[in-house]
Amino acid sequence: MTSPDASAAKPPARDPWDLPDVSGLVVGVLGGTGDQGRGLAYRLARAGQRVVIGSRAAERAASAAAELGHGVTGAANADCAARSDVVIVAVPWDGHAATLEGLRAELAGKLVVDCVNPLGFDKKGAYAIRPEEGSAAEQAAALLPDSRVAAAFHHLSAVLLQDAGVAEIDTDVMVLGEARADTDIVQALAGRIPGMRGVYAGRLRNAHQVEALVANLISVNRRHKAHAGLRVTDI
Amino acid sequence: MTSPDASAAKPPARDPWDLPDVSGLVVGVLGGTGDQGRGLAYRLARAGQRVVIGSRAAERAASAAAELGHGVTGAANADCAARSDVVIVAVPWDGHAATLEGLRAELAGKLVVDCVNPLGFDKKGAYAIRPEEGSAAEQAAALLPDSRVAAAFHHLSAVLLQDAGVAEIDTDVMVLGEARADTDIVQALAGRIPGMRGVYAGRLRNAHQVEALVANLISVNRRHKAHAGLRVTDI
Repeated sequence: MTSPDASAAKPPARDPWDLPDVSGLVVGVLGGTGDQGRGLAYRLARAGQRVVIGSRAAERAASAAAELGHGVTGAANADCAARSDVVIVAVPWDGHAATLEGLRAELAGKLVVDCVNPLGFDKKGAYAIRPEEGSAAEQAAALLPDSRVAAAFHHLSAVLLQDAGVAEIDTDVMVLGEARADTDIVQALAGRIPGMRGVYAGRLRNAHQVEALVANLISVNRRHKAHAGLRVTDI
Repeated sequence: MTSPDASAAKPPARDPWDLPDVSGLVVGVLGGTGDQGRGLAYRLARAGQRVVIGSRAAERAASAAAELGHGVTGAANADCAARSDVVIVAVPWDGHAATLEGLRAELAGKLVVDCVNPLGFDKKGAYAIRPEEGSAAEQAAALLPDSRVAAAFHHLSAVLLQDAGVAEIDTDVMVLGEARADTDIVQALAGRIPGMRGVYAGRLRNAHQVEALVANLISVNRRHKAHAGLRVTDI
């Protein structure tokens, strides 16, 4: 590994901020009528992305899409998946496994971006749930062997996302996945939303703590009456 | 709970940034000769805190203390614990349980601040280890029933901490614990280090993901050749 030849042949490290142009991709949002999904759809569409939101009922998706404007369209989940290049999974944790299992064929070959946070709540607040597979993202990867699975968009405030008066969202988006080509696409998508950067934050085996950290941000929000996000420093 | 009296009697929410004066407290650092412990001891002492570093061998602690300057002293772990008001646990995860079990008497009545990150490493990088108790901090709480246990200082770069040329460290410190009086003290301690803020981030049951997130920051550091930290936004 230390031979001069190997060294000479080694390409220079790529600039981590050199990301692909994703402006032509169609983004689907499963669970796009929920708060998180609706917020993400709104922000991406407002940034110029073509967005289809999915719901179990096509009519609900269509009416939510009409409310969001910015060219967002609505469809039943299966249609939404089939029509999209990148599919964001923003369904409730409760329905996560069943929804993905039912869409295996439509999601084959697609880049699937899981943003689900498995959380429980009791009178002491929120706490992390650890899925048997390790994380929601790893559950998605196990259920969708023919899809490319990444994880991102976990720490965003649905309130800020949906507030048309908020011009920029001051946060980074941690992006996890196995293939750089895929995480680069997700980073680029995050970067289209004013204020956000997509930051590569490791492989799917390290997704659990990123998903679970929302419980901590909920504590911050309660203490400070805020909509906390996260910035990664020194990059 | 909704009676007007209860509502009228409710005190106004305290300002989360209204933190106690901790300048008179003696801070011990168990594992103070390791990179993380040494770095924390250095930053706290440089900020004016009285700091004792502990090690299994008193002489090693004394010579490390002499190198750090700023009035840092060294002692065997048991002496370090006994002399301190607040004891930071910065030992390697491997020795975590044994070290704390052996210091139960000396740590009784103290505020113990766990900053240990249970991580494993293989050729794919770092990954989180989940202790049986849920987290290193919860293991400490289980082993030290007569101490008050908090968790903090997980995400700091030992390189930056120890670099005397670095004037400010651009990061927030997530602080977890069960009692506000304790987490307030830890937040205030973190706030003494230029650039840092201590931010309350929940109860100990939500410590695992904060500890584990270091695996993700290691991925960021590799990709960006950086010493990443975290800022909480909107507070």
